[in-house]
Amino acid sequence: MCPVFSGPQNTALSAGGNKALRSALQGAASKQGNLPVTIDLSRIEALTFDVGGTVFDWQSTIINAVTDLAAAKETAVDAQAFARTWRAAMFDHLVAMNSGNAEIMNADGMHRQALDGMDEAFAELALSPDEKDDLTRAWHHMPAWPGVPEAIAALRQRYVVSILSILSVPILVGSSRTAGIDWDLILSCEFLPAYKPEPDSYQGAARLLALEPGQVMMVAAHPFDLRGARAAGLATANLQPNLSEPSEFLPPESEPGEFDIEAEDFADLVRQLCP
Amino acid sequence: MCPVFSGPQNTALSAGGNKALRSALQGAASKQGNLPVTIDLSRIEALTFDVGGTVFDWQSTIINAVTDLAAAKETAVDAQAFARTWRAAMFDHLVAMNSGNAEIMNADGMHRQALDGMDEAFAELALSPDEKDDLTRAWHHMPAWPGVPEAIAALRQRYVVSILSILSVPILVGSSRTAGIDWDLILSCEFLPAYKPEPDSYQGAARLLALEPGQVMMVAAHPFDLRGARAAGLATANLQPNLSEPSEFLPPESEPGEFDIEAEDFADLVRQLCP
Repeated sequence: MCPVFSGPQNTALSAGGNKALRSALQGAASKQGNLPVTIDLSRIEALTFDVGGTVFDWQSTIINAVTDLAAAKETAVDAQAFARTWRAAMFDHLVAMNSGNAEIMNADGMHRQALDGMDEAFAELALSPDEKDDLTRAWHHMPAWPGVPEAIAALRQRYVVSILSILSVPILVGSSRTAGIDWDLILSCEFLPAYKPEPDSYQGAARLLALEPGQVMMVAAHPFDLRGARAAGLATANLQPNLSEPSEFLPPESEPGEFDIEAEDFADLVRQLCP
Repeated sequence: MCPVFSGPQNTALSAGGNKALRSALQGAASKQGNLPVTIDLSRIEALTFDVGGTVFDWQSTIINAVTDLAAAKETAVDAQAFARTWRAAMFDHLVAMNSGNAEIMNADGMHRQALDGMDEAFAELALSPDEKDDLTRAWHHMPAWPGVPEAIAALRQRYVVSILSILSVPILVGSSRTAGIDWDLILSCEFLPAYKPEPDSYQGAARLLALEPGQVMMVAAHPFDLRGARAAGLATANLQPNLSEPSEFLPPESEPGEFDIEAEDFADLVRQLCP
């Protein structure tokens, strides 16, 4: 049992907007949020949170940073397209890295290198190396969705609550400071045996926690991540806090019952994990 | 500048007891606590804390656990001798491991294995394997010295504040939860390139923080640790919060000026780091 927590509903989710799109994508799965939890929560000792998109609002962060930079340079840019392209390029490198076809580097390295590949598509910005360095550091100061610090604090009353992220230590520490979130532990794939969604990332996290994979629950807003966790033996919670993920990052429809928990937002997650 | 913090003076230090011994051991160094800080603190971005003895009271933890166990078994034991012997055996393994002459394992493994070597010396306990496992887990619930959570919170207003410890992730997470301390980051040598006092442990920590070694200050109550950090290029703060370290672990006399900061207790550390 966790302390009572009735933190903010996810206002974005409640406000319509892309909700119809998300409902269509999620299908029946989103309705499971109100069903009783059937997983044996007494077995779960630790929660590991994805954070990029799940906890931190990377898109607004990057849109704001690139919009400010464009204004300072007296030019215009499609900031949302820039943010989506950048994020996708980082994931392209990650996928190549996981299959042994790209240089191993941390997420700061991936972000910085991806910008060099965007010079042509966003020529209007004419980014200097220093400007690229500054933009790369914008990831170190992402805010969180509303209510997250309170939800994490509530969950920590019952569970060990850790980050498990492909992002770098400076991104994770810096953004947690910006967002005012205190974790029990930060686990970055930067120092784990593998990057998500490789099984040894999740299992490596469980080993460091001295737990069996089945004693750990991965919480994420991205089915690819949860599917990787499930394949590695972890329990899974599908969290849908975020309307502002661009459509290409919106989760594809998950199978009803595919994940152990379906939560509409952080308050719902706390309710279900602390019944 | 950190927020005003006038947390508890270290009552043990102020109360006499081993103070004369400590003063004799420390010589002039302890007087430096009241001198102006000459190091350029503006360069320091992160603090890395040793915790075993420096932050957490391992000795009382182990004395209490073994005393309780002996009472339950209706026998008597020299609990302080037991605690010292155990700690020393763990360090013996660590030294051998660092020189390539012992199996690589984390601190829980070292603690558990060391108990097997203590059967003869403490035969009156007749420890079963389960009892050894339970005692090993006692390290996961160490309390901190008074005022530490508040001091860490104050320092986090100005610095990124991390653990950098030879102890395992479960020890560090569990004891931080027991003590109510929130860190920006926990770095265990369990997942770093080396164990302290090897240079690559400190430098690996700085690399993960994306900082130069000289931008990181190691805080510890043990000169061997600070000397390792200094040799690796880190700044150093010598903290003397702990009267209950057994004499074999009391720091030998450090040279005046050997370390960048000499602090009498956590309140003094905050004062000097946040002038």
